[in-house]
Amino acid sequence: MGGDFGPHCIVPASISFLAENPALQLVLVGQAPLLEELCARVSAVDRPRLHIQHASEVIGMDERPSQALRSKPDSSMRVALELVRDGAAHACVSAGNTGALMALSRYLLKTLPGIDRPAMVTAVPTQTGHCHLLDLGANVDCSAEHLYQFAVMGAVAAEALGKANPKVALLNVGTEEIKGNQQVKLASTLLEQARGINYIGYIEGDGLYRGLADVVVCDGFVGNILLKASEGLAAMVVSRLEQLFASSLSAKAIGLVAMPLLRRLRSDLTPARHNGASFLGLQGIVVKSHGSAAEEGIQSALRRALAEIRENLPQRLHGRLESLL
Amino acid sequence: MGGDFGPHCIVPASISFLAENPALQLVLVGQAPLLEELCARVSAVDRPRLHIQHASEVIGMDERPSQALRSKPDSSMRVALELVRDGAAHACVSAGNTGALMALSRYLLKTLPGIDRPAMVTAVPTQTGHCHLLDLGANVDCSAEHLYQFAVMGAVAAEALGKANPKVALLNVGTEEIKGNQQVKLASTLLEQARGINYIGYIEGDGLYRGLADVVVCDGFVGNILLKASEGLAAMVVSRLEQLFASSLSAKAIGLVAMPLLRRLRSDLTPARHNGASFLGLQGIVVKSHGSAAEEGIQSALRRALAEIRENLPQRLHGRLESLL
Repeated sequence: MGGDFGPHCIVPASISFLAENPALQLVLVGQAPLLEELCARVSAVDRPRLHIQHASEVIGMDERPSQALRSKPDSSMRVALELVRDGAAHACVSAGNTGALMALSRYLLKTLPGIDRPAMVTAVPTQTGHCHLLDLGANVDCSAEHLYQFAVMGAVAAEALGKANPKVALLNVGTEEIKGNQQVKLASTLLEQARGINYIGYIEGDGLYRGLADVVVCDGFVGNILLKASEGLAAMVVSRLEQLFASSLSAKAIGLVAMPLLRRLRSDLTPARHNGASFLGLQGIVVKSHGSAAEEGIQSALRRALAEIRENLPQRLHGRLESLL
Repeated sequence: MGGDFGPHCIVPASISFLAENPALQLVLVGQAPLLEELCARVSAVDRPRLHIQHASEVIGMDERPSQALRSKPDSSMRVALELVRDGAAHACVSAGNTGALMALSRYLLKTLPGIDRPAMVTAVPTQTGHCHLLDLGANVDCSAEHLYQFAVMGAVAAEALGKANPKVALLNVGTEEIKGNQQVKLASTLLEQARGINYIGYIEGDGLYRGLADVVVCDGFVGNILLKASEGLAAMVVSRLEQLFASSLSAKAIGLVAMPLLRRLRSDLTPARHNGASFLGLQGIVVKSHGSAAEEGIQSALRRALAEIRENLPQRLHGRLESLL
């Protein structure tokens, strides 16, 4: 029921994704009459693999997480997470209120042993491929221990998703030892002592995009601002190039060829909007699709959830955390 | 003596700038024999307006600020700042060690009454023009009061540099009242009560580049990472476009036309590298040129210093601070 476009976007996107993945079963959770109606609009729905689970309440995009937690026992978000908790679903994908999704996920699924707080992670494009950036906003104030836990989780997730011996770095205002705040300095000491983590030290904002690390760790305040600023900058660059290419006849001809490529670039450069963000550190899989995500964004989030199910990521994390934390 | 290229870049850049500004007098501070030699290499130097002040020591780019403060009484940086303190120069421009420059500036020039810590500010390009972003790294841990002081200083500086009634915003992870850490929330309350400040509330990373505010305030940890990440992203975009335009014959033809424009864009998008950053809140004018700045960067920093001298920025700040803090 969440996101800027709500089920009008989510339902057709989910049905297309279902058609592409014949082994998949989907449960749509929300106001059943509306969901039934939206499903009926799509031709060739494989209904035996598409279930609708009624939930009478909806959590607003601006609702306080604490309120969502207390006052809406039958929200679509809560019901979906209960399906995961009870083993009736392998993963939950939501485009709704991020804070509420995190609070409900923690409350219903619990964190893995040794993890204080789950983190949000997404894959950010770099000069050399991509890096896993976390946290993205779930935790605005972080201790050194939290940053350490994020680093461990990020490393395991990167490994599970195909990167052998991923390089882990802490985001900082300089690469020299003396730089940074207390939390970052202490987290660095912890990571230097961690066995099985390929910790490469501090990284700066530009180093992230130069692809110097596979996993980049920061608190949620910094990560959220970095990610959104990157989206804003990418949009500005594309818009300036569009203006550039519209400014003269010869430039227009260039623009005709270049614009589709530029738009693809913009989409590459808005990872959370495009790919969604995964919650790490829970006893279950939860993927947040961007609130303003169109169909493609919803499908990317579903794809991410499917990959984590195949890799059994929470189980894998649990195994590694036992030896590392 | 500072910066990645040192006086070999700074001296010719300064001499060109001197030629363009007939009312200006410049003092080059550093190892006199080297500076004399570099000046001699440039033809048509207006020597009556170019002075060389010997300083026997140089502060290294990685030296600790505390050490630079204590152990080098005759460093070029210190001597240059002493010229400002003693009224022999109107402003100091340096491409050296940022931390040392800040520590020495505070020690020698002192902060304005009511200001605990000076901040670093630069003009960042946006969809609608540019905004003044501060702090950029001078202060990694900030209280609400510090953020409030930065906001006041940013507003006055923006006004002095030509923006009437500038819109001031706090950088945060959301625009709703409940978002953010304690410092940001408290700073917001302080700014809501401040008379004469056009405070518009929170802004997110993308809002900054959409040009929603004229002054954007954050702590130095966030500001530094945001700025460097933006530089890294801009470089990545330009590099991807270069690859794109090199990939086929027709695209190559496009590239020939488009590349100079893209390079200009990249230079626009690296404000600190290009424009330097100004220290606000001191009883004197200090502008930091980027360590890797080439001649153009040095000249931009000199231009910024000149603008602040003409506006008598410290004096103007002092007047406004008295009524606001």
